[in-house]
Amino acid sequence: MTRHELINQIKEKRSFLCVGLDTDITKIPEHLLDGEDPIYTFNKAIIEATEDLCVAYKPNIAFYECYGAKGWEILQKTWQALPKNCFSIADAKRGDIGNTSKMYAQAFFEEGASGMSFDSITIAPYMGKDSVTPFLDFENKWAIVLALTSNEGSKDFQNFENTQGQHLFEEVIDKVNTWGTVDNLMYVVGATRGEGFLKIRQHAPDHFLLVPGVGAQGGSLQEVCQYGMNKDCGLLVNSTRGIIYASSGLDFAERAREEAIKLQKEMELELIKAGIID
Amino acid sequence: MTRHELINQIKEKRSFLCVGLDTDITKIPEHLLDGEDPIYTFNKAIIEATEDLCVAYKPNIAFYECYGAKGWEILQKTWQALPKNCFSIADAKRGDIGNTSKMYAQAFFEEGASGMSFDSITIAPYMGKDSVTPFLDFENKWAIVLALTSNEGSKDFQNFENTQGQHLFEEVIDKVNTWGTVDNLMYVVGATRGEGFLKIRQHAPDHFLLVPGVGAQGGSLQEVCQYGMNKDCGLLVNSTRGIIYASSGLDFAERAREEAIKLQKEMELELIKAGIID
Repeated sequence: MTRHELINQIKEKRSFLCVGLDTDITKIPEHLLDGEDPIYTFNKAIIEATEDLCVAYKPNIAFYECYGAKGWEILQKTWQALPKNCFSIADAKRGDIGNTSKMYAQAFFEEGASGMSFDSITIAPYMGKDSVTPFLDFENKWAIVLALTSNEGSKDFQNFENTQGQHLFEEVIDKVNTWGTVDNLMYVVGATRGEGFLKIRQHAPDHFLLVPGVGAQGGSLQEVCQYGMNKDCGLLVNSTRGIIYASSGLDFAERAREEAIKLQKEMELELIKAGIID
Repeated sequence: MTRHELINQIKEKRSFLCVGLDTDITKIPEHLLDGEDPIYTFNKAIIEATEDLCVAYKPNIAFYECYGAKGWEILQKTWQALPKNCFSIADAKRGDIGNTSKMYAQAFFEEGASGMSFDSITIAPYMGKDSVTPFLDFENKWAIVLALTSNEGSKDFQNFENTQGQHLFEEVIDKVNTWGTVDNLMYVVGATRGEGFLKIRQHAPDHFLLVPGVGAQGGSLQEVCQYGMNKDCGLLVNSTRGIIYASSGLDFAERAREEAIKLQKEMELELIKAGIID
């Protein structure tokens, strides 16, 4: 999906919601467990209940990989069930030396090889340029590079500071910016520190940011928009638990839809406030 | 595998060789391509030809994952073919927030879940403590954390320097050291800069180091040993291309064995020189 198409989706759906598919067999409704493929059945129902309200889906690869080959089959079926007008994110946090990153790119971008072709993949930057650039060689595909995450451990290394007062996460953005463009690079920026976005936007004013941490992880949508939104919106805000586990009963999909509507309405207001839609 | 068992293996086999299983369908002998499962057949032959000469095997997960679910089946069969007296390394460079790293740990450590139980997994440290510690909760399993890698991009962030002249890779070792012990933590240190090991050993004198980059990537085994070996050896030196692609003919396994013998002989000399074996 191109940047232009993504922005159009945001305007049409009046939403910049990303729904996380971190589907945990211990958390899905019990009545699904008797069926043949409970995780896929759950995902499909969640997707059908939310696809007009969100612009992106983000399966968390670990939640599939933990079942080995069988989990990768479920992931592949889930990918097939994603509507083509939604931006798909393989949340995989991959990154290795060049020839290996190329193989990871193949895993997530080349349908002919792996049976899947996500629009994007999340990337860990520790190994530097040759670990990131192989993902940028695919047309209309995106690398979403970890910059400032929202977990507790994010402070351990991301805030490491050099003699010029520049933090590692800023150095990451500055360098990675030179390897790609606003058309194939995004950054992961956690929502738990609204003012952190001010600094991020100094380094990446025009890039899209993938923002986890709104809702269950404690981030505020309003703060994220106040400090992080740009003229094209520039945000994909993820919610997982608040939506997909809104109910553990027969009404799980219905309740997921209700929660997605709440977020979509909030996002619509922010888009209007910013003059991005009428 | 425990540290004690690993050290015993090194002494018994007079070797600290790790064989990388970065098995690329475009590089394996043509005569295998007609068979049912060429990658697995290749791996099995390589393992049988080298298992008395090496102490570890390291499948590079990307080379399997690029085929989706089918690749994960090949990985699982390969894991089953690994001799139990060899240390197994899932070279996966994973790392995510706590609940997600836990799922990745399940993928590589819990046979009941994924069909595989490697002794260790390589980890990217960017997301900090909660991304690493879930891998340390498994008995006799190891996290092998990226410190100073040997690829070109390693300089981009790993050498980032703070006000005290401490580099990021040093900060990573110092902090990660406090999360585990020499019994469940190793570090990845590239072999292309022998003297880099001096600095590494200041921060991690007793830890085992996984060392890629000897051979095709240009590192020297002698230099690695001169600067990096400790009283328990403390090194697992990986070779991939030099061994597994020694020949693309019918004699590929035989030639792989010959190359492994050369390295084992060099390693034996180093172990004798250091007084670790007689």
